[in-house]
Amino acid sequence: MGTLLVGQTGGPTAVINASLAGLITEARQHSQISRIYGMRHGLEGFLQERMVDLSAVLNESLPVLAQTPAAALGSSRYKVSEADYERLLALCRQHDIRYLALIGGNGTMYVCQRVSEYATASGCDLGVMGVPKTIDNDLVLTDHTPGYGSAARFLALAVRDTGRDLEAMVTFDDVLILETLGRHAGWLAAGAALAKTDEDEAPHLVYVPEIAFDERRFLDEVQRIHSHLGRVFVVIGEGIKDAEGQFIGAQNAPRDAMGRLLYSASTGAAAYLADCVRERLNMQVRFLRPGLIGRDFSACVSHTDREEAWLVGAEAARRLAAGESGHMVTLERISANPYTCTTGAAPLSGVAGVEKLLPRDYLNAEGTMIASAFYEYGLPLLGEPLSPLLRL
Amino acid sequence: MGTLLVGQTGGPTAVINASLAGLITEARQHSQISRIYGMRHGLEGFLQERMVDLSAVLNESLPVLAQTPAAALGSSRYKVSEADYERLLALCRQHDIRYLALIGGNGTMYVCQRVSEYATASGCDLGVMGVPKTIDNDLVLTDHTPGYGSAARFLALAVRDTGRDLEAMVTFDDVLILETLGRHAGWLAAGAALAKTDEDEAPHLVYVPEIAFDERRFLDEVQRIHSHLGRVFVVIGEGIKDAEGQFIGAQNAPRDAMGRLLYSASTGAAAYLADCVRERLNMQVRFLRPGLIGRDFSACVSHTDREEAWLVGAEAARRLAAGESGHMVTLERISANPYTCTTGAAPLSGVAGVEKLLPRDYLNAEGTMIASAFYEYGLPLLGEPLSPLLRL
Repeated sequence: MGTLLVGQTGGPTAVINASLAGLITEARQHSQISRIYGMRHGLEGFLQERMVDLSAVLNESLPVLAQTPAAALGSSRYKVSEADYERLLALCRQHDIRYLALIGGNGTMYVCQRVSEYATASGCDLGVMGVPKTIDNDLVLTDHTPGYGSAARFLALAVRDTGRDLEAMVTFDDVLILETLGRHAGWLAAGAALAKTDEDEAPHLVYVPEIAFDERRFLDEVQRIHSHLGRVFVVIGEGIKDAEGQFIGAQNAPRDAMGRLLYSASTGAAAYLADCVRERLNMQVRFLRPGLIGRDFSACVSHTDREEAWLVGAEAARRLAAGESGHMVTLERISANPYTCTTGAAPLSGVAGVEKLLPRDYLNAEGTMIASAFYEYGLPLLGEPLSPLLRL
Repeated sequence: MGTLLVGQTGGPTAVINASLAGLITEARQHSQISRIYGMRHGLEGFLQERMVDLSAVLNESLPVLAQTPAAALGSSRYKVSEADYERLLALCRQHDIRYLALIGGNGTMYVCQRVSEYATASGCDLGVMGVPKTIDNDLVLTDHTPGYGSAARFLALAVRDTGRDLEAMVTFDDVLILETLGRHAGWLAAGAALAKTDEDEAPHLVYVPEIAFDERRFLDEVQRIHSHLGRVFVVIGEGIKDAEGQFIGAQNAPRDAMGRLLYSASTGAAAYLADCVRERLNMQVRFLRPGLIGRDFSACVSHTDREEAWLVGAEAARRLAAGESGHMVTLERISANPYTCTTGAAPLSGVAGVEKLLPRDYLNAEGTMIASAFYEYGLPLLGEPLSPLLRL
């Protein structure tokens, strides 16, 4: 018998609270778990003993929690120090915490692994499970991560719908550039193309951070497509880099007091490339930068994503109650068509600090458009079919 | 007996095709209308005799057309010359066009009025009706315009949901600035605040183009709110101006070969103000600029908006068949609670070229937040209730 402590860390998603709701629901089924505490703002808050007793949350509120976007407990990007690990274990002992679940990404899985090791080394009876969460989809040993499907669905719809706008306004606008989140991985940029069903439809070009960006070739491609379609829809990942590893548009970005790039705050690659196209090709260009809207938007989540987010939370509680520790819950695809997926687990040591990049064969030979293998992988994650459109 | 010609002009919306579908559906009920032609890319295409025979569109396709975003016929921003009016009437005679409907905004209503006058002066038997459409909601003599409700619903949800993100990440992010479309009118910036139900919720500040923007006061407000909440969510209209009438952030914007501001393409006010807050207040800032996504997004349209868009299209066909001309269809609010609205008509001469700005009493005394009168006006336009959220 003991308390389960759960936290949410890193950037929120539209379905991160579904994992929390799933975890609470399942934990209530297990007599070993006497109480559930939530950390306020992740470990940063917990180290200040800021907790909320989740026993007070009514069962009938949990479906509402599951459809609430962003981290309801509060999140943080706190860097855990060595001293913090000691204090964390001391606080767990003090509050009779026997089970720890952190819902997060890469960095969070590293923290989980370290806590688990510290606990073992110091003889502290603490089970630790990681619950995967990131719109970036860059965790290894899981087929995909909860949060990704909803973010990709939003972007795919945004590209499809504004692609129709560009088509309608073809006598006025020439080029639209949409910048996605996703950091070093191209999963979201590729996902933004998933509603495309025809060569002439948006997007016409997709650039991911995994492939060195060549400005000259980009302008040639834009020119070529414009010459036969009269319009070009470009999707770029925020983290696209040139062959020297320099971020595109980084020259525009503000830096902090120590000269480090304020990456998330920068006007970024889309603004830079829009200027490029305007000046060099003399075209009418707009850029779209939905930013955080893409990770939080509650009105078009993938129902598959929300269900899976719930399931990984529940699976973490089940495994903790069964005495398991040192693992991250995973999603394992059983079959592609019809899409079926189940939960599993992988050792934290295999996940922590490793980034899963977009495989090369998910793109075409030129590396400027998604390939059929990626449609097969990605489309089921978008959930229910997209509404049909008519072309006159 | 004669042909009805319909066109879509100016910036698209998520429901502009619902007006087209409503018009086609109604026109098919009237024996006076023998055929329906659509202009490709508005008058610009029609003057080149680019038309599509809409008789080929099946009745069962019309609901799909109604949920297709952006202008399915193609739109344009073509400036009609005096010579064009003559040619337009000649083409109407040549193709036996007796009825003309243009779905558009301010500029379109001016064109409708001129065509109507030309037709009368030259004894041409041509009925002309304007069908209101603009996300900007800046047409007079109508309670509101189709397209606005859906754009406002998207923005209100985007602000609500990313507001939860800012709240979750309060130990990391300080300020979010969201820039809306809307040109010279503050309807969309105000609409973006409609999901706010509590003082601490996003947004905390709303700036509209109707009120001169004072950078100093803005920074003071941000500082003040940050000092007690730790976070500030700011909404600005793209067209905010200082006391001298200078657009905020215009210094960053690209200009065309003639030195005119490329307004829509500019990195704009949000990027400029984000830099301002970062440099002057030393805060962590992000800005969101959904741009065209807000006018096209099909996955969260207001059902009320889509129904009304259908109705104004149908009403135009009905009035044309009845021999009416020289009017724009309007929406007239019968009652506020429960919200009921009906269609009517207003003379084009009263609408053409006039901009309806946000009334001062729709904002608070400071002019930095929406007031209760605006909730009463705007909430019904967002359509079905927004999904409830939970706070832990």
